[in-house]
Amino acid sequence: MDEFQLIRAITPKTHYHEKLILGIGDDAAVFRPDDGKNIVVCQDQMVEGTHFTKTTMGMSDVGYKALAANISDIAAMGAWPAYYLVTLTIPKHTNKDEIRDLYKGMQELASFYSMDLIGGDTTSGPALIINVTVLGYADPKQILTRSGAQPGDVLFVTGFVGESGAGLDTLLKNGRHMRFLDMEAEIVRTHQRPVPRCVEGRLLREAGSTCANDISDGLASELWEIAEASSSTLVIEEDAIQFRGYMLTLERKQALQYAFSGGEDFELVGTIAADKWPLLEELFKAKTSVPVTRIGYVESGPSRVLSRQTGRVLEKSGYNHLSKGDNHGDVRDSYDN
Amino acid sequence: MDEFQLIRAITPKTHYHEKLILGIGDDAAVFRPDDGKNIVVCQDQMVEGTHFTKTTMGMSDVGYKALAANISDIAAMGAWPAYYLVTLTIPKHTNKDEIRDLYKGMQELASFYSMDLIGGDTTSGPALIINVTVLGYADPKQILTRSGAQPGDVLFVTGFVGESGAGLDTLLKNGRHMRFLDMEAEIVRTHQRPVPRCVEGRLLREAGSTCANDISDGLASELWEIAEASSSTLVIEEDAIQFRGYMLTLERKQALQYAFSGGEDFELVGTIAADKWPLLEELFKAKTSVPVTRIGYVESGPSRVLSRQTGRVLEKSGYNHLSKGDNHGDVRDSYDN
Repeated sequence: MDEFQLIRAITPKTHYHEKLILGIGDDAAVFRPDDGKNIVVCQDQMVEGTHFTKTTMGMSDVGYKALAANISDIAAMGAWPAYYLVTLTIPKHTNKDEIRDLYKGMQELASFYSMDLIGGDTTSGPALIINVTVLGYADPKQILTRSGAQPGDVLFVTGFVGESGAGLDTLLKNGRHMRFLDMEAEIVRTHQRPVPRCVEGRLLREAGSTCANDISDGLASELWEIAEASSSTLVIEEDAIQFRGYMLTLERKQALQYAFSGGEDFELVGTIAADKWPLLEELFKAKTSVPVTRIGYVESGPSRVLSRQTGRVLEKSGYNHLSKGDNHGDVRDSYDN
Repeated sequence: MDEFQLIRAITPKTHYHEKLILGIGDDAAVFRPDDGKNIVVCQDQMVEGTHFTKTTMGMSDVGYKALAANISDIAAMGAWPAYYLVTLTIPKHTNKDEIRDLYKGMQELASFYSMDLIGGDTTSGPALIINVTVLGYADPKQILTRSGAQPGDVLFVTGFVGESGAGLDTLLKNGRHMRFLDMEAEIVRTHQRPVPRCVEGRLLREAGSTCANDISDGLASELWEIAEASSSTLVIEEDAIQFRGYMLTLERKQALQYAFSGGEDFELVGTIAADKWPLLEELFKAKTSVPVTRIGYVESGPSRVLSRQTGRVLEKSGYNHLSKGDNHGDVRDSYDN
């Protein structure tokens, strides 16, 4: 299979969106935006050696996760994904099957959300790099921002946090070809194939929330982003954070460490007016199997995150990728969208 | 200056587009699309060592050109740019001033077009890579596609082709710090700071053209793309191709070689119905200093490019970046948008 055949193999023959006028194959893609909707756009990239290794991730997992990280950003706006672009940097002598697997993993997730691949670029370079851009639609009247937290709001998180970080450590210890026990398989899967919370983001909007952030760099880092963008104090009640399965086999202190600084859970953390919290709980019970948990509250005060238990300021110890000395991890944290 | 200061330095404080609701700083950017317009989007990346070297390009040139290549794709649709996203992959120990210069070059061009930087990502990696996405607006009734050529159409090109390739060779020979003669400085500038033809793309639409392609990989390669997408034969009259300045000091055969396979001129090549050609000429004379030149015609027949002079099929010898053995150059050619 030569490169042209590869491109033909990954170029979609049909598309989901009838408003897509021109997809891959010209200088640019063209689509007619949905009436009355706003456009939402984000971009995120994964570099081999910095964000993943072949020890911990199969190529289809890498493709899946690169797209999932972007869809998660869309979900954290209370928006819905529609289109994506992919640019690959491929080292010479890369096996074509690996690239095919990478696209396959991406397409599995894209087809679930009926997303059309509309463009990108492919170049050679010294490392495998997957750059993904996602375009979607947001309600013109209500988006979920990091700056939307108000004093008096309930602070909540969806799903179970910390599992991705624990899954990564399990993978680093055993490699991805290990036959994992059920409980381990669950956290490994959370690391390799996290599920973006688009449905849950929609429920947040429905209940009247105005503030959310997706957990890409660890709960501590995301809470700080909300506190700073909202100019408020977030009070976190560590005791309220829920764990399940494998995480319950750990000392609670270690589980909390994963939750606060593990990262890549792609759950949503946000706030909602206290009087709307019961409605949010109700909507989650009725419409998703993902739980939502109250983990604290917002109060007026300086931009900071306080522990209710210790009364101390929580450290910003966000997740800095595989390489702990990676300074650009910090750049990424602040610039990222 | 640490990374946070760098990010603050490059994050725009104001924006041009009043419909931009949320720029950099949240999970995603949000904007309200212009009424009645279609969205156009493209993505292109430049890898150090593959697409540029520091011998031939200053960092601000690299930033300028990475954005220019994308704006050129928008121009080739007859569309207008509005927003851009930038993802950088930065090797460790990169000088911060270099990154600042890179953004500066980009901002010079962006401010000319009143484009807002709305997102991206920054990660560390083994090579300097600049990935740019541009979003813009297209007329819902008329876009310029590669498939828009019709038998009987006039084939035309804007500006002067071949200068970027000749400029690259001059730079590779002398380095970019050479004191160039005026004529050399012109082709060096075309290579380092090509001007995207947005105004000219708009004139093409105004005159009623439906087909254009920007010259990123050389005239031969772009003509073939049109021939294949339009299922037509393009007949090229080599004698009609115009040169100026430095290019006139070369043997015509060598100048033509640069035009056909040099690439990165970012001029537009396209077709228009023969009866509309005089209007196009008139519009160019009245509204731009960039010339438009008739260089052949379209006829019914198999997808191919024929030389009027020799009667032979023109080779697809497109530009394959600095590294001639770079197979992914081919992939890029076909997948690129």
